[in-house]
Amino acid sequence: MSHSEEAATLKHVDQIISPEWMIPVSSKGKRNVKALTGLSIAINHNKIVAIEPTPRLFKHYTTDSHTELPNQALLPGFVNCHTHAAMSLFKGLSDDLPLMMWLENHIWPAERKWVDDAFCEDGVTLAIAEMLLSGTTCFNDMYFQPNMTAKVAQKLGVRATIGMLMFDFPSAWGSGWEDYLKKGLSLRDDYKHSELLTFAFAPHAPYTVSDEPLSKIATLSNELSLPVHMHVHETAHEIKESLSQHGKRPLKRLQELELVNPNLIAVHVTQLHRNEIETIASHGVSVVHCPQSNMKLASGISPVQDLLTAEINVALGTDGNASNNDLNMFSEMKTASLLSKVYTGSAQACSAADILYSATMGGAKALGMEKLCGSIEVGKAADLTAIDLNTIQAQPLYDPVSQIVYTAGREQVSHVWVNGRLQVENGHLCRLDNSQLISMAKNWRDKIQHSKANA
Amino acid sequence: MSHSEEAATLKHVDQIISPEWMIPVSSKGKRNVKALTGLSIAINHNKIVAIEPTPRLFKHYTTDSHTELPNQALLPGFVNCHTHAAMSLFKGLSDDLPLMMWLENHIWPAERKWVDDAFCEDGVTLAIAEMLLSGTTCFNDMYFQPNMTAKVAQKLGVRATIGMLMFDFPSAWGSGWEDYLKKGLSLRDDYKHSELLTFAFAPHAPYTVSDEPLSKIATLSNELSLPVHMHVHETAHEIKESLSQHGKRPLKRLQELELVNPNLIAVHVTQLHRNEIETIASHGVSVVHCPQSNMKLASGISPVQDLLTAEINVALGTDGNASNNDLNMFSEMKTASLLSKVYTGSAQACSAADILYSATMGGAKALGMEKLCGSIEVGKAADLTAIDLNTIQAQPLYDPVSQIVYTAGREQVSHVWVNGRLQVENGHLCRLDNSQLISMAKNWRDKIQHSKANA
Repeated sequence: MSHSEEAATLKHVDQIISPEWMIPVSSKGKRNVKALTGLSIAINHNKIVAIEPTPRLFKHYTTDSHTELPNQALLPGFVNCHTHAAMSLFKGLSDDLPLMMWLENHIWPAERKWVDDAFCEDGVTLAIAEMLLSGTTCFNDMYFQPNMTAKVAQKLGVRATIGMLMFDFPSAWGSGWEDYLKKGLSLRDDYKHSELLTFAFAPHAPYTVSDEPLSKIATLSNELSLPVHMHVHETAHEIKESLSQHGKRPLKRLQELELVNPNLIAVHVTQLHRNEIETIASHGVSVVHCPQSNMKLASGISPVQDLLTAEINVALGTDGNASNNDLNMFSEMKTASLLSKVYTGSAQACSAADILYSATMGGAKALGMEKLCGSIEVGKAADLTAIDLNTIQAQPLYDPVSQIVYTAGREQVSHVWVNGRLQVENGHLCRLDNSQLISMAKNWRDKIQHSKANA
Repeated sequence: MSHSEEAATLKHVDQIISPEWMIPVSSKGKRNVKALTGLSIAINHNKIVAIEPTPRLFKHYTTDSHTELPNQALLPGFVNCHTHAAMSLFKGLSDDLPLMMWLENHIWPAERKWVDDAFCEDGVTLAIAEMLLSGTTCFNDMYFQPNMTAKVAQKLGVRATIGMLMFDFPSAWGSGWEDYLKKGLSLRDDYKHSELLTFAFAPHAPYTVSDEPLSKIATLSNELSLPVHMHVHETAHEIKESLSQHGKRPLKRLQELELVNPNLIAVHVTQLHRNEIETIASHGVSVVHCPQSNMKLASGISPVQDLLTAEINVALGTDGNASNNDLNMFSEMKTASLLSKVYTGSAQACSAADILYSATMGGAKALGMEKLCGSIEVGKAADLTAIDLNTIQAQPLYDPVSQIVYTAGREQVSHVWVNGRLQVENGHLCRLDNSQLISMAKNWRDKIQHSKANA
């Protein structure tokens, strides 16, 4: 075969990326989290079409866009599996307060005063900027005005699961549970052709949604195969209240309402009896661990190593910016691993590989996206994060997986692609203007702080 | 008075710094940690000579070097009160292992094989680069070859307390306790005119140093007014061993050896009875909290809020890079505060102000440097760190103290001065070459990893 014949067999693709290391995080199980070298990845029509040793890949593929990342590890983008994105505008508004004082005297009044479409549009934009800059390509949100969360995520090209929020009580988003349900399903319909957005039922918590709407959600989530995103067993107080009101623990009540099944994404879960771990495991529930929020609000510690041992799917989330106070999956991974070690008394608990799996594939599985994202595999969407390991802080580099979990920071994120589209390049946002974002946040700060001072 | 007469009364100083915010951290007590605006600071001969509202300061002082920091908060540099700096070359060498397997199969063999003057010189250089880039201006070190720690810190112009290391057993640094003592004191003598270096006795731990040398150190530290830097009650195992060998808990033994006094810097202290907290408080001992290391090695949790309530001086340390795996005081502050909250069940525990005080003045006090550094006050050395709060991540900014502890990262450090000398400018090291440091670390990595693979 002549040289020209050989060239003619080359398939043209949108882009090829050649990183120094690749950590594909196979969907085949958590033990398969390691750094490989010498690989390149071909992307076409937003999908990964080939992962091969670089010379072999270039024998089969050609492109006009070849990105070489000689100092970087390429990972699946982080999946932040529990956020209240718009709350970014309340970041640091009040700290170091007991949960109920924080909620009743600060967060709830601020929400009643400020939360509307304009607030949520700006808050979600700021949150997405922060998440992209720290390597997150997909987030699972629950907050008021999900219409704005959907609008901004779609506009900016970020993957998200939009929570169809529900409470018993009215808010800026709905007048009661039937109204919330109607608006949520209608919003889902608006985006039925979106490649980026999926939807989940998001009844806030067992103590804010009563049996009838929860039962309705159980039926609908089963019929529509949609996840149910819910705060569950966040605090001991929640358990106590449920025992007094319902005569049973919240998980038991959810089980009787037929919500305890693989659609359930149970967030926080700091309070668990042994038999409840078995229930969660046998019913295929996913748990979202939010260690920094649980620590900051003194909610408790989720027994993550026990969950992993029971083969429960564990995802990782930052929670909202008001209780963290960042949306940084790097520090969340490190905290999750360290907290698990000291909590169990075993330095082996929740290894770097375990938690990197949770921060990527664990989230994708919880959201029912295990065939779409969460790992770098042929056929999946190109949701990718490149981390620069050629910094002073990352030296010496014995093991990229360990270094990413225990040492790396958000500032080492150099490139981010969502669905094949470049969102961060050399540490800078491609589609958002930094100074405009900062001005916008300052305007909100001035208004909110001024109003608080005069309250 | 004519204009020229007025100008003649202006005092010329080496430099003036005008930040947007200043968080002076008064030495007068932890409640005084807040962000002030509109102030400038005049520095002459390495000392802070004035802190005044900017227009007033410029009525009295003039300079050829005026640094304006319009987006930054200026803080006293962090005091990292427990490090093994040279161990930076073992960062990430082995993780997720039980303490004894980690020590016996990985760290101790690596130390026996690699630790010498050349290793320590390079390791300390890398550690100082990392510490400066993350805003630390003073560190309290304990490791082999303190001669090299002293040499590098002095050469690079960083403040440090050098540990006069002691074990019962021999090492690359000494043949036995008398030899360690002699070498330590002789090293101290070599640097008696240093403005930057101070010395502390550094008996490694109660379980590695026997009564006779400890007693000797008690006498000498009293005579020379030198601190005693020691791992104390790091793990439950240590207590158990001491009970079996000495019939008493380590702190009790140290008390009988007359080491429990204001010179003692007790590191870790995860195991404490109520009466031991009282002993520590009434004897003026300082405690160094190293939350990330204690978590990563599953050592336990120091009851920091109880220590603060008992008015004990609490400092903060990262421990060595092999068990953290960074020397980043930002994440250490956040972890310390969050861990204390979840441990006590109170979201009010260990506030942002409390922990920022520990990370600066708490460290200075522990090291007997409370009149020298740890706060921005007239008469103190100009050890300063400027943190850029005009980033996406730091928005919206309601309270700089909260934002620095809960949200900021090392990458926001823009400027660092030690003893009046600029060490970091716009996030770049002024006196060290980044690529040379990275090459050096890679060479060590290649040697150490290759040898490990062939072991």
